[in-house]
This record gives sequence, C-alpha cells and structure tokens, in this order.
Amino acid sequence: MNPSPSPAQFPSANWTHGLKRSVLRQMIAVTAQPGILSFAGGLPAPELFPREPFAEAMAQVLREPLSLQYGPPQAALKEQIVGLMAQRGVSCTPEQIFITTGAQQGLDVLTRFLLNPGGTMILENIVYTGAQQVLAPFQPRILTVPTDLQAGMDVKAIEAYLAGGERSAYLYSITEAHNPLGVSLSHTRRHQLIEAAAQYAIPIVEDDPYGLLVYDDELLPPLRALDDQWVIYLGSFSKILAPALRLGWMVAPPALLPQLTVVKEMGDLESSVLIQRAAATFLASGHFPEHLARLRQEYGHRRDVMLQALADYFPAEARWTRPRGGMFIWVELPDGVDTAALLETTIAQEKVAFIPGHAFAVEPGCGRNCLRLNFSNATAEKIEDGIARLGRVIGEEIGKIC
Amino acid sequence: MNPSPSPAQFPSANWTHGLKRSVLRQMIAVTAQPGILSFAGGLPAPELFPREPFAEAMAQVLREPLSLQYGPPQAALKEQIVGLMAQRGVSCTPEQIFITTGAQQGLDVLTRFLLNPGGTMILENIVYTGAQQVLAPFQPRILTVPTDLQAGMDVKAIEAYLAGGERSAYLYSITEAHNPLGVSLSHTRRHQLIEAAAQYAIPIVEDDPYGLLVYDDELLPPLRALDDQWVIYLGSFSKILAPALRLGWMVAPPALLPQLTVVKEMGDLESSVLIQRAAATFLASGHFPEHLARLRQEYGHRRDVMLQALADYFPAEARWTRPRGGMFIWVELPDGVDTAALLETTIAQEKVAFIPGHAFAVEPGCGRNCLRLNFSNATAEKIEDGIARLGRVIGEEIGKIC
Repeated sequence: MNPSPSPAQFPSANWTHGLKRSVLRQMIAVTAQPGILSFAGGLPAPELFPREPFAEAMAQVLREPLSLQYGPPQAALKEQIVGLMAQRGVSCTPEQIFITTGAQQGLDVLTRFLLNPGGTMILENIVYTGAQQVLAPFQPRILTVPTDLQAGMDVKAIEAYLAGGERSAYLYSITEAHNPLGVSLSHTRRHQLIEAAAQYAIPIVEDDPYGLLVYDDELLPPLRALDDQWVIYLGSFSKILAPALRLGWMVAPPALLPQLTVVKEMGDLESSVLIQRAAATFLASGHFPEHLARLRQEYGHRRDVMLQALADYFPAEARWTRPRGGMFIWVELPDGVDTAALLETTIAQEKVAFIPGHAFAVEPGCGRNCLRLNFSNATAEKIEDGIARLGRVIGEEIGKIC
Repeated sequence: MNPSPSPAQFPSANWTHGLKRSVLRQMIAVTAQPGILSFAGGLPAPELFPREPFAEAMAQVLREPLSLQYGPPQAALKEQIVGLMAQRGVSCTPEQIFITTGAQQGLDVLTRFLLNPGGTMILENIVYTGAQQVLAPFQPRILTVPTDLQAGMDVKAIEAYLAGGERSAYLYSITEAHNPLGVSLSHTRRHQLIEAAAQYAIPIVEDDPYGLLVYDDELLPPLRALDDQWVIYLGSFSKILAPALRLGWMVAPPALLPQLTVVKEMGDLESSVLIQRAAATFLASGHFPEHLARLRQEYGHRRDVMLQALADYFPAEARWTRPRGGMFIWVELPDGVDTAALLETTIAQEKVAFIPGHAFAVEPGCGRNCLRLNFSNATAEKIEDGIARLGRVIGEEIGKIC
C-alpha cells in the first residue's frame, strides 16, 4: 500500500489550515505525567465520585434491555434536572430541558445555531478555551472585552460595542466561578447584562458547570433565574457527578427545541439512553444531596487551604482571585514574568504544574504573566506542599527581574 | 417573567431559516406508538443485546474510580478495534484508530474538517439522512448520482462530474448493505471508486456500520482494505453491540488525528471513558464472537423470512433489493403509488409502519413510489404477518391505479 498522505495533502476546509491543538489540552496531557503534582487540569477529585451508588444505579438500569437501545431524551432525567435547577434558584419545566452529551455539546449546538460564517462575537479576552474552539470553524470577527477580577465580565464594554452598532451572535457568560479566572459576575452586572441582551435582542448563553459548587454563604441567582426570554442555560453533570458520563443539559425556550434537536442530531444522533437512565436512577436514589454537600465541604476546604498557602508562600508582588466556588484560582505575577517559561522550570525543578495564562487568551500575548491553579484535584496536604514549592520558584524568578 | 420568544424572534444563523426536523426521525417517533408493528426504524433487536456480559463488564470497570474521570482515548479499546477491523479484512494499527461518540460524530467531524461553506458535494440521490444532515450548515451545492439496486452507487457518474472539472469535499460510500437501499457496492465499482479518489485527490468516507453483519458467504473487502491513503473508515458499535453506547471509531491516517481531535473536542471534548472501558472489557471477555455469530444467524433468518414474505404477499408489480447484510430492504412500487399516503392507510387500517422512500431523497420528489423496510427489529412471525398485511393494502392501492 502507499504511505499515508500528510495532512497537507488532504484537501481540508479552509478554516482548518491554521488549526492547532488546544494549547490547554496539550498542556494537560504533558502535566499528567506520573510524578508530577498537577494543578493544571480541571479534574474533579476521583475519590469523591459517588462510585458505589452510581454502580448500583447502573446495574439496576442494565436489567432492562431497552436501556441499551436507541431512544428519545429520557423523561425521568428531565424531571431530575428540573429539581436540580430549582436548587440553583431556577424555576423551569421538563419541556424546557434539552439533554446534551456534556455542556460542551450545548455550546457547540448553540454556536452552530446562532453564528453565521464570518459573523461577529463579543467575548472576554481571557475565557474557557472550549468556548473559543467552537467558534473557530466560523472564522468570526471577535471583539474582546476585559474581565474585572472582582466583578467579572465588563458589561459596560459590551454595551459600548452594541451602542456603536456592533452585534454578537450571542453573549457568553460563565456567571459563577469563571474558568479560568475564578471570579463571579457581580449582582449589578448580572442585571446589566440581561438588560443589554433584551435591549439589543441578543441571546445570552450562560455556561454554569460550577453553579451548584459555591462554597460561600452568599448565593446569587444565575442569569436564567432573572430572565427566561434571552438566557439559554447550560448545565453539566461533569463536576457534580462524573465527567465520564458526558452528560449535560440546556434550559431553553421550548419553541427552539425542535430546531436544536436537528442540530444536535448532526453531532451524535442522541445522547446515550443508558447513561441518561443511570444518572436519573442515581439522582432518584436519594444519595445526591449528601454527595453534593460533601463535594462543597471538601472543595471549599481545598480552596481555603490553597488561598492560605498562596498568602503564606507566594511573594508579595503576586495577586490572585478569591473564588466563591468552582475549581480555579487565577494568579497575576508582575509584568515581565513569563509563566510559560516558568512552567518549564517548576516541572523540571519541583515537579509541580499549572496552566500558563496565555493558554486562555483570545488576543495573543494576553495573560503571559498569569497562571491558573486548580484546587479540586489534589488533597489539602498536596496543595500546601505544591504551592510552597511553586512559591519558591516564583520568588526566585521575581528576584531575577527586580 | 416575559413569555418565551418564538424561534423567529431569535436571531439564528442564516442556514437555520429553512431548518426542518429530520423527516426520518419524526416518522420513527410517529411509528413507535404502542400497538404499531413497525418496520420503520433502524433498531437492532433488543432481545439479542449481550446484556448480561455487558453488565458484568460495566460492573467490573466501575470498581475503578478513574473509569468515571476525564481521560484520553482508551488504548485497550483501540486494541480491540484493531481486532474487529482484522475480522473485517482491514489491517491497521492502534495509531490509526480515532474513537468517536458514534459513527454519526465521525461523519460530522469529517464534514467539518473537509467541507467549506458553500462547497460542493457529490452524493447519491437516495442516501442515509444523517449524511445529508451534517451537510446542511454548509449550504453546499449538491450534485447527485443514481444508485443501481444491484451494483450500488454509480461510480461512472461520479467520474463524469470529476472529469468535467467538478470537485467534492469527499465521496460518501455506504459500501456494504446501504441504508436505505440494502445494496452492496460491486467488486468492480469498489476498485473504480478508489481509482477515482486517487486520480482526483478526493478523500472517501466509508460508512460501514453493517460491515460485520453480512449474512451470505461471499465477503467483499471494504474500501479501506483496498486503499489506506484516501479512504477514511467509519465503524460503529450501535449495530453489533448496542446503540446506547453511542460509541464508534474511525480508521484514518495518523497524521490527521491531531487535527481531527481538535474538531471532535469542539463537539463533546472526549468520548466517555466509562463507556470505552466497558466496551473494551466486554470485547476482551470472549463473549463477542458467539454474540456476533448469533446476530448474523438471527438477522440472516429475519431477512430470509422477509424476502420470502415479499415474494408471497406483495403484488407482482413490486420489486425489491436482496441485501447481503445490514437491516434494510428497499421496495419499489409502480410509478404513481405515493408511499407517504400509503403509510397513512397502512397505519390506520393495518397498524403496520415503514418509511416512505422520499424521506431519504436528496432531490425532492425522488423515491415517492418506494419504501424502506427494516427486518432486524421484529421477530420472524411478526415479519411474515406484517408483510402480508402490507401486501394486502399495496395490492388494493395498485388495483386503484391500474
């Protein structure tokens, strides 16, 4: 047989010519080597998975042959999701629930539904890479807005674009515990964002994987609780149950569901009936409230340990966010520190990893002096040890510059 | 709160303005009502699922917490797939295997990778609707070719387009047991298709969900066994294990895999580690050869029963394909019979359902006098009874016309 052609010989679509692997996912692969203490990924703690009750639920649904068959979105799961949304402060009905193969699929489906090739998107300058990836095939014009590390996305900057005649296919908001910045959108900005969406008739896609993982007492309503006209909500079981379910949902106006169904069918026909039934059976088994309470307690503790360790071991020039929930802390080092180079040093000298900030930048060059730290995947002891080791290298690095 | 906006008020992408629900999937939903004997869907027989050994495999992998975590494509599954491909007559290595969330995702990923907006596609006039759906967002110019009911896709017609200066983002081939036509591509045409692809540097996407479900002795090699340069192969566990796994694979040139990975990540980040491990463990358990032999025997029997019943009960004017494998028989009735209207009659009078041929037509109006019958989902007794009832209504219908 002939040798395989190189990608360049394959007549692929124009948008793919600049296609690169996700820097983020590449780095996560590199930093997942044995012996590395990694704060890089966005992994939940596997020791907290509700493994046994989920295995019981799975065994139960596997007694029924039709759990292995093609089938429609499962009504029992929609009912459970309505209950989860009520815990999140959102009142909705099963007719508004759209099952997805993870929240990433929801983002992809909505982007395909809302964005024209060459269209315009307003996006935060530093934002979840999965939200950037789904835009790439459309080769959009991207207008960026900054994000305040205390109050979240700069809604005034969005309004200024819109008042100036710009449009956006949708407005993307990680309202609670932003990935990678850790910030939650302030109460005032939530209302401003909804007003802007309504005034300019632009849908908001609210990506809320961490909404049920808030560790402080103050609970703010998600955008979907404030508006059911322009907000489409994306939920996920990855962080509250298990990533390997690849299961999520949308809360969307029922009139859109037939069209969104066609777009979803392109991608994978339907989400696994088996996984849907196992998740619904687990949620109905009564184990979930205790499980979620345990997640909140343990992740809240790990966050506190990491914040304390940052205060104890990081140099005075460093600044960081204090997330109310989620999995990430964002650290800013003085200008001039290159965290991509720093990562090589910390892996070589201390076997500790993180994600350099530039991996999340929409505009190249942004976030070079920043890093994202994950606090959900390592124990408190390892967090304290790892942050101490990171702090030592960073102190030396800053010493060299100043 | 305000009432939900109607879809028209949502500023959706241009291509969605003509978006309709898949006629096929809508019909499958309609015909799935209780009391209807349905030859409509493409469902495997649930009583043949290897439910117990699969449940054992699932229980085994759920003893390991990391089965519920994010993770890379599972090496153990790739090894098993290499073994399946060897059974299919294809020699390949794990480095060429790309795991997908069902073969539909493979088709979607490859279309996004290969087709430009407004690009050109050469496609059979009657073809699997999922292959048509993935094209829709690109609003392509579609050039159609006919399909011979004995020898398959008209490769000469494809060559004529290409010789005339037309291109196609890829050539789509359901080489074995075509959905919906039931025909397999002849040996000669397989070679002609590969030669055309090489001559004009156009990739072939070979969609092969039924390749291991051939019931006759004569086995022809898939396109991928004849060429590893231009053929990208799509495999699926839906028909040989269970649809609810939503698990499939590609065999593709290794050099393309990093780029295809990025395109797949847009859609769902990764395929479920849990499902991948359960499938790999089931395949390694030794139950698969016996299971596959049982599927072949039972589906082969059901096909034979349906073919005999068609000969016994359908009027002399009807013609149909004799599939070597797969799940479908295609029936042509005399011009003037409208199978969409016929379906209403057969459901009302006989409670028997099928899919009218026009549901698979690329050019509107084609296939109006045709129907697709599924033989995998009903028992032999029901097949004989249902075909007799269908034959009666069709006989009356033809009597009215002639």
